[in-house]
Amino acid sequence: MSMDRLLEKIAEKQNPTVAGLDPKLSYIPDYIREESYRKYGKTLEGAADALIAFNKGLIDGLCDVVPAVKPQAAYYEMYGWQGVKALAETIAYAKSKGMYVITDGKRNDIGATMQAYAAAHLGGTDVDGETIEAFGADALTVNGYLGTDGIEPLLTVCAGKDKGIFVLVKTSNPSSGEFQDQMLHAMYEPLYRAMGNMCQHWGKELPGKYGYSGVGAVVGATYPKQLKELRKALPDTIFLVPGYGAQGGAAADVALGFDENGLGAIVNSSRGIMCAWQKEGCAPEDFAAAACREAVRMRDEIMGCVGKIALPR
Amino acid sequence: MSMDRLLEKIAEKQNPTVAGLDPKLSYIPDYIREESYRKYGKTLEGAADALIAFNKGLIDGLCDVVPAVKPQAAYYEMYGWQGVKALAETIAYAKSKGMYVITDGKRNDIGATMQAYAAAHLGGTDVDGETIEAFGADALTVNGYLGTDGIEPLLTVCAGKDKGIFVLVKTSNPSSGEFQDQMLHAMYEPLYRAMGNMCQHWGKELPGKYGYSGVGAVVGATYPKQLKELRKALPDTIFLVPGYGAQGGAAADVALGFDENGLGAIVNSSRGIMCAWQKEGCAPEDFAAAACREAVRMRDEIMGCVGKIALPR
Repeated sequence: MSMDRLLEKIAEKQNPTVAGLDPKLSYIPDYIREESYRKYGKTLEGAADALIAFNKGLIDGLCDVVPAVKPQAAYYEMYGWQGVKALAETIAYAKSKGMYVITDGKRNDIGATMQAYAAAHLGGTDVDGETIEAFGADALTVNGYLGTDGIEPLLTVCAGKDKGIFVLVKTSNPSSGEFQDQMLHAMYEPLYRAMGNMCQHWGKELPGKYGYSGVGAVVGATYPKQLKELRKALPDTIFLVPGYGAQGGAAADVALGFDENGLGAIVNSSRGIMCAWQKEGCAPEDFAAAACREAVRMRDEIMGCVGKIALPR
Repeated sequence: MSMDRLLEKIAEKQNPTVAGLDPKLSYIPDYIREESYRKYGKTLEGAADALIAFNKGLIDGLCDVVPAVKPQAAYYEMYGWQGVKALAETIAYAKSKGMYVITDGKRNDIGATMQAYAAAHLGGTDVDGETIEAFGADALTVNGYLGTDGIEPLLTVCAGKDKGIFVLVKTSNPSSGEFQDQMLHAMYEPLYRAMGNMCQHWGKELPGKYGYSGVGAVVGATYPKQLKELRKALPDTIFLVPGYGAQGGAAADVALGFDENGLGAIVNSSRGIMCAWQKEGCAPEDFAAAACREAVRMRDEIMGCVGKIALPR
């Protein structure tokens, strides 16, 4: 159940990071894009073909070092169903290389509709008696604004399939406080804290053997004070931490999301890894190796603050 | 700009309703499914083929009476990229029949990622200089938990393309109050009201000629008291009202969402319309006509409470 598989991969690699796969075309080397356009033209098919080639290269370059990838659904949807097909292929390829896959979809709805999202992204779809995996990620990010009705259908699927969710709690963006920081009158705590408390509550249905349930939380590195507060308040809730690097979160900030065993958080980097070849100024053909070099640098920087990762017995 | 085109279609048809296209396989007549499985087997392709055939029939049956359709993304994603292709085809077909299309995706993210969703669902995608419409709906439902950073990128696309958004404010489900009804300490108003106020604020960037901006709100028919309160408090914000029928909202309830011109709300029915043939017990081949009969019944019931719809001059 739960996040156990993710924690095991993190401990095995001694690397609590996840590579975001948000493949803008401008991140992809010219030679890949040109090859795809030669085959399919400057079309959605062409763009999707380039996405896949780039992602496969990145996954090949990262899979020995990084335990997980996080494809962001928006960057695939923008290329239509062809892009969404590239998402499915990316997920399958990452899994075939032993990586844990978190689809960043921030999905939310209620009842039967949320069941449909759960089936789509984590479970299996029933086609008149045949069960088929549509996307088959290991975890999905979700938005809890609709309350328990929007989370319960996911818990059922996660329990049956050994999968997990990450609920938006305190997001990394500048305006996240507009609603999330609002103090609630009845509880005299901010909305993000109430959402976090619900993650603890929902997680009771998906206990994990290392202390972390199948219900994680998204908590931005750009708010270290809240990250520290929430780490203490939500002992069963693993954090997916965006905002490291480009958005301003430092290694010392993200370290506040970890517990004394070096567990409890997984830190995302997207652009930093995908665009390492541009930043380095290396040959475009070297993009995957550059991504790996940046992933190693990030791992070492964060592990320098976290210390050793040890699964509790 | 804004929701003007939607309001014009509503006034022209004297029908403030939208048909939800949430095509579960169990809603689709056997003869359609069997034909699709003969062609593609019990596969995601087969399911997607049945979805399209069913949706096209429904759209043909409804387009003279109903101004808009609302495909729910989850029911397409569950059939993989093949289902997502069926979503794109459904949107294109509904538009070709003159219908306004609201994609119910409840998308949410920030910055460049939200721009990608905006491009995907409402705008156009740039493929190295070629602009291609990926899904091309007229409006998109979104979740505002992340604050202005998650809404601003949509406003830019909506302004340029004459499109709109509906932000989740007070949802129709039983647990919607867990967060949405929480009283905020600073404002001494509930979260849903604060979200509604932000819709008014965001909408100032997308003014409409009939008084309603391009930023609408989702407000459930199952909470008539709040619907009435919000209608008064948010004069520039059109409401997308789920929860009529199966979920318990009555015509007298939804009528509270309308202004004195019969404008200000569009009421959704999904299952009631899609499954009318099952409820009637008519021949399965008659499903589209049954959907139309139910749409007419719903229209007449709601218009009986709303009176006449008149666009202000």
